[in-house]
Amino acid sequence: MLSQNQSKHIRSLHLKKFREAEQLFLVEGDKMVSELLSGNGGTVTQLYAEQGWLDRNKSLLSMLKIPVFEVTASELEKISTMVTPNQVLAVVQMPQFSPNLTLPGRRTCFYLDGIQDPGNLGTILRIADWFGIPAVYCSEDSADFYNPKVVQSSMGAIVRVPGWRISLEELVQQNPGLPILGAVMEGENALENRLLPSVGILVIGNEGKGIRPHNESLLTHRIYIPRHPNGGAESLNAAVAAGILSAFIPF
Amino acid sequence: MLSQNQSKHIRSLHLKKFREAEQLFLVEGDKMVSELLSGNGGTVTQLYAEQGWLDRNKSLLSMLKIPVFEVTASELEKISTMVTPNQVLAVVQMPQFSPNLTLPGRRTCFYLDGIQDPGNLGTILRIADWFGIPAVYCSEDSADFYNPKVVQSSMGAIVRVPGWRISLEELVQQNPGLPILGAVMEGENALENRLLPSVGILVIGNEGKGIRPHNESLLTHRIYIPRHPNGGAESLNAAVAAGILSAFIPF
Repeated sequence: MLSQNQSKHIRSLHLKKFREAEQLFLVEGDKMVSELLSGNGGTVTQLYAEQGWLDRNKSLLSMLKIPVFEVTASELEKISTMVTPNQVLAVVQMPQFSPNLTLPGRRTCFYLDGIQDPGNLGTILRIADWFGIPAVYCSEDSADFYNPKVVQSSMGAIVRVPGWRISLEELVQQNPGLPILGAVMEGENALENRLLPSVGILVIGNEGKGIRPHNESLLTHRIYIPRHPNGGAESLNAAVAAGILSAFIPF
Repeated sequence: MLSQNQSKHIRSLHLKKFREAEQLFLVEGDKMVSELLSGNGGTVTQLYAEQGWLDRNKSLLSMLKIPVFEVTASELEKISTMVTPNQVLAVVQMPQFSPNLTLPGRRTCFYLDGIQDPGNLGTILRIADWFGIPAVYCSEDSADFYNPKVVQSSMGAIVRVPGWRISLEELVQQNPGLPILGAVMEGENALENRLLPSVGILVIGNEGKGIRPHNESLLTHRIYIPRHPNGGAESLNAAVAAGILSAFIPF
């Protein structure tokens, strides 16, 4: 049974300002919630699930001390952010990463300059999580890290990869002397020349407009993923470009 | 002014069966429609646009012989497939690529095994369009090439990159002796060992289930994008994996 108060509270977390005020966000679906509960990062404060899901996860749940509420499919629909809710919804505490403006992990990090599409931001977090990229920095006008679509497309990376909002200028001041690479339409062939450094800042621009001029002026290297002579596309998707470049960061 | 018949006709094209019966599909938004009209492939049969867009494109439109209908924002909303329609909608003929089951272009092609997410399929077409990959083959149960979300995320690649539905078995029979590579969870390091051939078939599996067993048995090479030792993600997004591997196909 879902009370009116619970329903109202969860629906408030669909919005950024309430997520920030309460430092809570929503994670949905069997796969992602199961991963969270199995201890792979993230603290679940409440669970709302259909009976079938609760039955299948009885032994796991009995070991955890989490308030669990059984809901019907139509109740879940009322509180879900998804068009087709998937059995379970978790209210999760935002991870408290220790503030880190000097690049952690001695490894190249992403700086996202105005990434707007939540699917792209989530996919980039997932890429960072795969390639061991220790932090994702982004401009103030990028999508919200805890937007439900970011959370879903991050596939759990949201609780493992620290994300920070900061201007590129400040990040550069905190990390003097590091190479700052930007993916631009005309630059050096990043793949053939193996330009990606072990430690540096890799700037990925906005989906339509690329890197804004002020940030472009801060780059120390302009790099490019070469298009095949027979290719017709005007550009690559921002997350795909981030993925390709990540594969060239030395291990 | 939009007649009831026009509105009904366009809305029917939101559905696969009517798209196939009429060999027509929809392309929306200023950027993609402008690209189509500038002659970069694709045949527009009708245009529905708001007055502002028509004014801005007057000189281009006067050179073309396309039936143009001015619509209001609320009329566009009725016929659009998008949550937020963007000024213009085009009815476009499906490109008639000549059937080609032997790999064209002497270059590695994609085979998509059950790619379900339309955004992933469109993004993979865009990747193919960037890297000069001459065809995208896919299993019968993959997303529809002309699904509006595929069209949008392909960013125009849909009219330039031929897509075919075929079983992997038949594709292999038509192309005997070619290497068939599959991205799997445990395989050879595709990046370090530069395993991608100039000519071959690169199989990308379903988002959740990977490559189905029957198709996996047809692979001649099992390849892998290595995860960093500090990485936490279980997998990469299918389109991102396709993009990374494409960057390693010899030019």
